[in-house]
Amino acid sequence: MIDQVIERWHQHLRGALPGGLDELLADDVVFYSPVVYTPQEGKAITKLYLEAAGQTLPGDTAAGDTPADDRPSSGGGFRYTKQVMAGDTAVLEFETTVEGKYVNGVDIIRCDDAGRIVEFRVMIRPLQAVNVVHEQMRAMLASMKPAD
Amino acid sequence: MIDQVIERWHQHLRGALPGGLDELLADDVVFYSPVVYTPQEGKAITKLYLEAAGQTLPGDTAAGDTPADDRPSSGGGFRYTKQVMAGDTAVLEFETTVEGKYVNGVDIIRCDDAGRIVEFRVMIRPLQAVNVVHEQMRAMLASMKPAD
Repeated sequence: MIDQVIERWHQHLRGALPGGLDELLADDVVFYSPVVYTPQEGKAITKLYLEAAGQTLPGDTAAGDTPADDRPSSGGGFRYTKQVMAGDTAVLEFETTVEGKYVNGVDIIRCDDAGRIVEFRVMIRPLQAVNVVHEQMRAMLASMKPAD
Repeated sequence: MIDQVIERWHQHLRGALPGGLDELLADDVVFYSPVVYTPQEGKAITKLYLEAAGQTLPGDTAAGDTPADDRPSSGGGFRYTKQVMAGDTAVLEFETTVEGKYVNGVDIIRCDDAGRIVEFRVMIRPLQAVNVVHEQMRAMLASMKPAD
């Protein structure tokens, strides 16, 4: 089940999933931020965080860049570097660059029996990355409104 | 293979693995700190970091505490909360408390065909946890010497 969920997650990131996050997330999904202690409960707030992250983490590469460019792997846009799945849980490791800072992180995604995401947990390293993502997310969230 | 490696990792944490980290780690293992960008290359420096983490992350519970105590799960000592393994990689999620601060993290462990750990990557959340672990690790590493 989790592999189908992750396939749909990748589809969503490509903008190719009809229904998008509304389709993927359970109503009672909980989002755990890399920065903030308090779990964010429910679909509306989780969508808000994932949309903000989706605008922050693509990083210093413009969205229209071709994936075939020959930029060195130490810079550039968001890419998944590991995918570990078992049972109801997937861990996707990623790298990106935000404001010139290297960001390495994981998405920990857990689904229910219906294939909806019930837990979305993000951690990043190193310390400089946590600080730059903190700043970016704060600015992004301040400019967004939660969906109804 | 990775499940045997993780079984031996847990044995090591209980102090029950003959040979300890020398047995578990490949000579060319690389450690990725939750705080510092630069990968730490080789067995000696990786041992140093894992030993420092082993003294920092058990957190506010004394090592002799029984695991059967009835402390609420929001406090207390180091415990693994998820284990996801596939191929050559395991992701172990943990929780602990350091200096009164909640720490949630992952150990990402990758092994070679001989069952030696070649990559050990740690990420933690939230921001407060990264800061408190940063301080603790700095103090701990300053008081330790690398093994030859």
